[in-house]
Amino acid sequence: MRMRKRKWVAPYLESEDRYLVRDLRKGRWLSESGCHALHLEIGMGMGDFLTGSASLFPDILFVGLEKDATCVAKAIRKAEELGLQNLLVLNADAKDLCEYFAPQEVDRIYLQFSDPWPKKAHAKRRLTAPSFLELYQTILKEEGELILKTDNAGLFEYSLLQLQDWHLEKISVDLHREVQEGPLTEYEKKFMAEGKPIYYALCVNPVRNRV
Amino acid sequence: MRMRKRKWVAPYLESEDRYLVRDLRKGRWLSESGCHALHLEIGMGMGDFLTGSASLFPDILFVGLEKDATCVAKAIRKAEELGLQNLLVLNADAKDLCEYFAPQEVDRIYLQFSDPWPKKAHAKRRLTAPSFLELYQTILKEEGELILKTDNAGLFEYSLLQLQDWHLEKISVDLHREVQEGPLTEYEKKFMAEGKPIYYALCVNPVRNRV
Repeated sequence: MRMRKRKWVAPYLESEDRYLVRDLRKGRWLSESGCHALHLEIGMGMGDFLTGSASLFPDILFVGLEKDATCVAKAIRKAEELGLQNLLVLNADAKDLCEYFAPQEVDRIYLQFSDPWPKKAHAKRRLTAPSFLELYQTILKEEGELILKTDNAGLFEYSLLQLQDWHLEKISVDLHREVQEGPLTEYEKKFMAEGKPIYYALCVNPVRNRV
Repeated sequence: MRMRKRKWVAPYLESEDRYLVRDLRKGRWLSESGCHALHLEIGMGMGDFLTGSASLFPDILFVGLEKDATCVAKAIRKAEELGLQNLLVLNADAKDLCEYFAPQEVDRIYLQFSDPWPKKAHAKRRLTAPSFLELYQTILKEEGELILKTDNAGLFEYSLLQLQDWHLEKISVDLHREVQEGPLTEYEKKFMAEGKPIYYALCVNPVRNRV
């Protein structure tokens, strides 16, 4: 998600030190949090899903990664309002995931309503391109999960073709034909209101017996 | 597809000997046809897709398998009208496929708008249940293809979960968002007119180096 730059964002983030992570916590995320599992949302946008999830599951550490500073600032304001203790935010790029997370450190990764990059020439930028899936395989636990949600048919089809080595645990081509529980992302609310189908897949990391 | 029994069907089929196969052609389908490939539709219904395909591709032998005698009779009448030379029909049940086809005899299998059997207790009857997929793996060539089309989200999701050993070559969660060429089934025309999405997958037989 890309937002217009707001004047308040830079000074706000500079002084923010409760949710925004600046130090390198690679390998120490869970031990420093007191939580028992780490769920990472890549491209958390303005954090509706992540803050909602953190409220519901206080024993899980939710980490949101987001490139756009305005989104990051808005998500942090929501976390502040809710007084969340189990949410942290990285203002970073997904291609650098392995700098921030140690191998097998993450229990679950969420990719929700990611940029579909519809042109073939931009396929490498899709968050389910092979180069990204390799990163996820590295930082996810052996039985770690990747959850994909999108309204974009092309991105969903591309992703399923790329994810063939993974174990497909659940899939839906119309998620909201049954009532869903739990928090929704900003885009999900919008697309549901428009009556568009939401595509969903839960895949399990295929890497086993890794040294 | 199940139809009301019509009086004309039984005597018509009894005397029909051009399209309806009664002898055992296992292992001899192609050698007796002069065609270079065998495409099998399981549950051909009234044969709109199969007769259309046979007209377009005279070098391919199209075999339609269908349990319902009325459907079989109607499909044969279409084939007669078109004077098709490369279409044959089996009035049979999919569970007996290996009685009719030798191992690796079939180039492509079509499952189109099959009965979704939505109740869990009936899952074994779905044409993508594991027991059926085993039969397809046996009669398909090593690089043989299984093409699945359905309007039923539940059947499509179930099928993708079952087909994980197969290589997924193409997939669409909304086939007609791009213009499709080639003949359509009866159901496909109906669902397109209603604006329902059509789900599609092309999977390649995973069995290699089989004796």
